[in-house]
Order: sequence, then structure tokens, then C-alpha cells
Amino acid sequence: MLNKQVKLNARPIGLPKLSGWDIADTNVEPITEGQILVKILMLSIDPAMRGWMNEGKSYIEPVGIGEVMRAGGIGVVVESKDDSFKLGEHVTGMLGVQQFTTLTAKELTKLDASLAPLPLYLSTLGMPGMTGYFGLLNTGQPKEGETVVVSGAAGAVGSVVGQIAKIKGCRVVGIAGGEDKCNYLVDELGFDAAIDYKSEDISKALRTHCPKGIDVFFDNVGGETLDAVLAQIRFKARIVICGAISQYNNTTAIKGPSNYLSLLVNRARMEGIVVFDNAGHYKEAAIEMAGWIASGKLKSREHIEQGLENFPEVLLKLFRGENFGKLILKIADE
Amino acid sequence: MLNKQVKLNARPIGLPKLSGWDIADTNVEPITEGQILVKILMLSIDPAMRGWMNEGKSYIEPVGIGEVMRAGGIGVVVESKDDSFKLGEHVTGMLGVQQFTTLTAKELTKLDASLAPLPLYLSTLGMPGMTGYFGLLNTGQPKEGETVVVSGAAGAVGSVVGQIAKIKGCRVVGIAGGEDKCNYLVDELGFDAAIDYKSEDISKALRTHCPKGIDVFFDNVGGETLDAVLAQIRFKARIVICGAISQYNNTTAIKGPSNYLSLLVNRARMEGIVVFDNAGHYKEAAIEMAGWIASGKLKSREHIEQGLENFPEVLLKLFRGENFGKLILKIADE
Repeated sequence: MLNKQVKLNARPIGLPKLSGWDIADTNVEPITEGQILVKILMLSIDPAMRGWMNEGKSYIEPVGIGEVMRAGGIGVVVESKDDSFKLGEHVTGMLGVQQFTTLTAKELTKLDASLAPLPLYLSTLGMPGMTGYFGLLNTGQPKEGETVVVSGAAGAVGSVVGQIAKIKGCRVVGIAGGEDKCNYLVDELGFDAAIDYKSEDISKALRTHCPKGIDVFFDNVGGETLDAVLAQIRFKARIVICGAISQYNNTTAIKGPSNYLSLLVNRARMEGIVVFDNAGHYKEAAIEMAGWIASGKLKSREHIEQGLENFPEVLLKLFRGENFGKLILKIADE
Repeated sequence: MLNKQVKLNARPIGLPKLSGWDIADTNVEPITEGQILVKILMLSIDPAMRGWMNEGKSYIEPVGIGEVMRAGGIGVVVESKDDSFKLGEHVTGMLGVQQFTTLTAKELTKLDASLAPLPLYLSTLGMPGMTGYFGLLNTGQPKEGETVVVSGAAGAVGSVVGQIAKIKGCRVVGIAGGEDKCNYLVDELGFDAAIDYKSEDISKALRTHCPKGIDVFFDNVGGETLDAVLAQIRFKARIVICGAISQYNNTTAIKGPSNYLSLLVNRARMEGIVVFDNAGHYKEAAIEMAGWIASGKLKSREHIEQGLENFPEVLLKLFRGENFGKLILKIADE
């Protein structure tokens, strides 16, 4: 049986290149005791992938040159030499950009496809949802009546952050790119306001929509957006650093926040988060979020592209902001 | 009676100018019921003064054009129409760059000149000491065995931070300018190591002296120093933003920390402090620090210049790093 794989063939400088990948077939090796063969159905396409392509220390090892690109995904068990995993069961884990993968029990988590549509396990009930949930609640610590701003607001993490902040009784302002996304945030997700960074002056719009200043900022974007917010934070504000997609493809140094001394003036805090630190509590979070989904308080939207061989192009869509909702690459039917 | 005053005559761009001040005599007005006339003996010359000279919102109102420059200081009561303040008592407060000031009881705090030399009330037992004490202990939260780095380490705040971190059982590395200051930190204050930013590569020296990485950074300097430290912080590090003297006289935008995403990688926190928030606890801190001073665990050094009319030049000494110890301008004998 053949396994088509997408391997990193060069570390990009700036935006990833379409030519930066090798796509080739290998044979699926027979599995041995304790192994589980998974047929991959869909992959999560994430901003964090850009970081994994860089050399050097981060919160996780970089993907090596010639290695299969790392990706979270959902698959189905097609062969198992571990009694705890049965044929036909759905699983999630770091499956990689390929058609099949051989892993062991501790690298896989089972999913119940009858409880929620599978793609939801890559968005609200998956890493993006967990990131938003723990980052906002544990680190952002929003209180009722406070003003919460989120960048990348129409994305998989941002939309969860904004909706949970609404559930907690906050005024919520989202920053996103384009009229469609902004309308979606306000009309469908119930944000109090949305700012289109492509057509509006962010600083001016923040002054309009956050007249009392900003108590919590959940940042997925960095760059000018972070600076604009820093200039308008309130006393004891909390800034959650989740990502900086505006800076990931820089060919020059990352733009640090020039307005960081606003932290001093306002006795405010800026803190970084990585979702894996909360692994022991994913289950409680999933139960609470499933309840909100069931009651219509927490909505999600997926943007599904097709075909393993389109991975290089689909990754670029993400960095161009062309996805609307959680970006997923479907690579096989069951 | 004449009162010589130093007034701000123009907002500086970049370094303050010697010509940016008006020095002139006015008459001391007769005091009225509830007022206290103070003869000013010495003034504290602080990095924060540069911020007070800028227009715009900060943690405190800017000094207005034509107003007496703000300065903390120590004086002696020479006339009082408030029964709680008597002739000859020593007081501290925001006295301003002038020879005399008329204030009310709530604007003054009494000092006991028999307990400690007066200049100590402008250094370790004054605002710089309180800043170091609360910033390190409440915000930096150093634990025994952790590595604490402090910039501006030979200054009034930094030397208190480093010595308290030693008292708490930490490995302490100071960053300062020049061999004399570095020797002082290690030989007299007991720091484990000192880095001379004028002659050493800070990043390389940090790797040598902080082999396990940095748990707490207390930053008075900003700029390249902050970036160098960010690249070497440990998991859950705490960065206390107290000041950014390297950036105060910029004529271009402040240099934001390019390495701020290290906060994310390391789940670390950067938090701003302003000493005034701890006003309710100054007394306990002073008692604890006085104990450390008495037992020789907490030393301080003052750099005393002379003459009110030298204020413009003495302020520049501070920004050129020419002071060694807490910079104080003595303007009168008792």
C-alpha cells in the first residue's frame, strides 16, 4: 500500500514557497506489536506550522529537512496491534501531512464522531478551541463588564475567544480582515463590534469601539495591531500573546511592540501561552464548550479545502488570510 | 526672601538641553493657615524625570511649560502654620527643583535624621529602594535558587534589587556600564557576576553567567539589553518593566523588544510597575530594609552633586551614566 507524503525540502525565508516541498509515495511498512495504522482523513492547517519550519529552539522541535511536515489531524484506524484501538475508530493526534501514519496508543486520542461533526474536533473542540478557552480564561482573566479585544478574530482561536468573552459578560471587539469576516463576527457570533484592519485605521476604530479602554487583549497577530492596542490599554490590563501571524513570514527581524512601556504606565501584563500546558484539563474544557455549542452560544465555521497535494498552496491561503473559518485540508473519505 | 527656581521652558526632543530651563528668583509668599514652608536641602535626580518632561498621558501629569521642574527631595521646616509640623523637622516629598516650597501636611512625610543619614531617604529608604523592593518581590517573585538578572544594576533601584535577590537565595547577575561599577557589584554588593555593557557582548556574557537561563529580569534599561535577556529566559520567567533609560531620549520611536515572542515560547510574563501603587506598604518595607542595612546585607552608595543652578548639567550626567550610586543634588546646608 502506498503512502503519499509531503516533506519539507528547504527552510523558507519569508513566506513558504510552493517549491519548498517534496511530494512522493512511500510504502506503508507492516505494523508491529503495539502499533496502530491510521488512514488520515483531514488535517488542521495552522499558523503555528510556520514556526515549526524554522530552525532553532522553540516550544517544540522544528520539522527536519526531508521529514514529513507536522500537522494535527483526524483519521480512522485501518489496522491495529493494540487491543485498546479497534478498526474503524476515529482518532486525532499529530498525524503529519500524509495519507497514512503508524503510531502508538499514547500518541492518539479517540474521538466520538456521533457527538460532533469530525471537523469540529480540529476547531472548537480541538487545539484552537482549547487555546482560546485556556488562554482567555486562565491568562486573560476577563471580568464581567470589561472590554476584551481579540485579533485574528474570525479565525479558529479568535472566534472562540470572542464568544467565550461574550458568555462571560464582556464587551467584545474583534479585529479581522475584510467586510465579510467583520459582518460574521457581529451578526452571527454576537461580537459588539468588529474592526476591518484592511480598510480601517485600527487605532481610530479602537478609540470608537473601546471608549473606556481595553482590559484584555488576546493577540494572534502582533506587529502594528499589538502596538495600536498597547496604546489604549487600561490600568492592570492583561495581554495574552498567543501568536503573531503578521510577523511569521518576515525576512527581517520581528517588529517588537514599540509601545511596550504602556505596560509600565498602566501596570499591565503581557504573557505568552502554549495550549499543551493545559493538556490535563482538555476534557473539562471540551465538556463545557460542548454545552455552549449545544445551546447555540458557541458557533464555529470551517473552511475545508481538498487534496493532500494542495497542501503547499492551502498553507499560503492561511498566511494571505484567505480562509474564512478554521482551515482544514480534507485528504480522504472514510 | 528669595526662592531660586528651575522651570521647564521647552519640551526636549531627545536628550534634555542645557538651554531648556529658566533659572530665576521669585519671592517666597507669606504662608497661610495649614501651610508649611520648607527649605530644600537635597533633590533626587531620577530617570523618571525625562518622562515627566514629555507631553501626554503617563502615570503622572507632565510638568507644564513654565512650571517648576518636579523632583523628590528632602528639606527642613523653616515656618509652619500646621501644628503637626514643627520648625527644624526634616521632611520628604515632591519638593521641586527650587530652594523653598510651600506645601501642606498631606504632601509631606517626616524623616528621622537620627535613624539614617538623610541621603539614604532618597535612595534605599526612598522611592528607588521601594521600587526595587516591591518590583522584585511582588512582581518578580524570585524563588531560592533561581537566576535573577538586573539592568542598571549599579543604580539606586538596581543595586537594591540585586541585593534583595541575594538575600532571597538567588543567583544574581547585574548589567552595568564600566569596570568600576561592575567590580563594585561583585566585590562590595555580593552579586555573583556583573556584565559591563560598554565592553562586553551582553548575550554572550549572559550565556556564561546564567547557564541555566534567566528566571527573573528586572529591567531599568530596555532596548538591546531587554532583547538579549528575552532570548535567554526560562520557562515561566518573569520580566519586571521598571524603566527603559536607553530609550527615554530617543528622537525616533522606542525600540520594542523584537524577541517578545520568547514570552510565548517560554510561557513567560512581562509586567510593568510603578512604585506609588505600594504607598500603603512603604512603612513595612522601610522597616525590613532598615534591618538589612543595619546587618550589612543591604548597602547603598550615593553620588552627591552640588548647587541648584547645576541641575540641567547633573540631569545629563544621569543619562550619560556618569553617576555611580544614587544621584543626588545637594542645594543647601541646614
